[in-house]
Amino acid sequence: MDAGDHAAPRVRVHNFSVSLDGFGTGEGQSLEAPFGHAGHRLMEWALATRTFQEMGLHGKQRPTVGVDEAFASRWNTGVGVEIMGRHKFEPTRGAPDEKWRGWWGEDPPFHTPVVVLTHHPRPVMEMDGGTSFHFLDASPAEALDYARGLAEGGDVRLGGGATTIRQFLAADLVDEMHVVVVPILLGRGESLWAGPEGLEGLEERFHIESTPSPSGVTHLSFWRDR
Amino acid sequence: MDAGDHAAPRVRVHNFSVSLDGFGTGEGQSLEAPFGHAGHRLMEWALATRTFQEMGLHGKQRPTVGVDEAFASRWNTGVGVEIMGRHKFEPTRGAPDEKWRGWWGEDPPFHTPVVVLTHHPRPVMEMDGGTSFHFLDASPAEALDYARGLAEGGDVRLGGGATTIRQFLAADLVDEMHVVVVPILLGRGESLWAGPEGLEGLEERFHIESTPSPSGVTHLSFWRDR
Repeated sequence: MDAGDHAAPRVRVHNFSVSLDGFGTGEGQSLEAPFGHAGHRLMEWALATRTFQEMGLHGKQRPTVGVDEAFASRWNTGVGVEIMGRHKFEPTRGAPDEKWRGWWGEDPPFHTPVVVLTHHPRPVMEMDGGTSFHFLDASPAEALDYARGLAEGGDVRLGGGATTIRQFLAADLVDEMHVVVVPILLGRGESLWAGPEGLEGLEERFHIESTPSPSGVTHLSFWRDR
Repeated sequence: MDAGDHAAPRVRVHNFSVSLDGFGTGEGQSLEAPFGHAGHRLMEWALATRTFQEMGLHGKQRPTVGVDEAFASRWNTGVGVEIMGRHKFEPTRGAPDEKWRGWWGEDPPFHTPVVVLTHHPRPVMEMDGGTSFHFLDASPAEALDYARGLAEGGDVRLGGGATTIRQFLAADLVDEMHVVVVPILLGRGESLWAGPEGLEGLEERFHIESTPSPSGVTHLSFWRDR
């Protein structure tokens, strides 16, 4: 953990990639295709950065260190805990596979507690390097309280997927959000913008800044005054 | 008309604004609210530019001349004809109001023929300043043939709305497209990206460039080699 010296912990979203039509993942998520029919296209910009290359999980290439890296590198600074949706943790639907220990191997890149929102709670899973997975069946506000208790004063990273982020936005629990618009069209999948929560008028709650990258993606920064 | 010296006429979209969630207009379009519940928010960036201010249709303010103006000003250069959907021409649904002569007064800013796609054809409407409205019940390819016959060698501007642009994209008839992403969420309305046509994979047909503006919008440029 690297908690920094913020006045109060923030809830932050980082490196969340969506297609032009707003999908954070394609359809047909599975063990072989974590992003469904989107394949790797939503994350190509990120996988090329030094930050993601140094996680050692995504193949090897000569890392980029421009604006994509500048945004990507913020993901863990000052963060004391992550909250993620169940589908980010595992590809299955319905009853979970009890042997599944996440996509990230025995030493996941988080190095903090991670709260996994699920209707199928199970015991805490301790991993190497300081990561632990805590399974919780709770509302966004309850999960946030619980996560803050694990964060040792650090910020809370909201790790996605789209449904989880939408729910936290609808409950007005998000302080900062970095969304990366990738110039592809997916047509179907899990939408960041469309859902029963109704995010109309989001722009009245946030400052919004838009930054293009030579890689072709656009970084959107949302933040609110506190 | 200002046909320029292109090798062959192009089909171009200009200044088409969408919300972050992809809507080109809100819900509830009417005479009083041409963009439905979106109000003026989708077009604020454009109305502030010199190009739109000089149309004299949109109230008076001190015009901007930065990157928004640079993009906005291209709309009529080299264009010999416009194709627009019926809902861009008039707010009604079903049988048209025969007295309606468009939103733009007796001297519309087009100064070229305009082909209006509609299931209710009527005689050509001659306006002042070189604009004429031609009502046509036709497929995108047929409408394009017809429009080219009116264009005197100029390019074809595809004027929207979202449904019309989607249909031309699905038929692979668009050469250039300037889409402006406005950082608001509408939640409902007419989507540029979502429809039965299925625009998945659009990025394989186009170069795509993204440019942010200090006004907060992002200009997306799509073009294809010919």
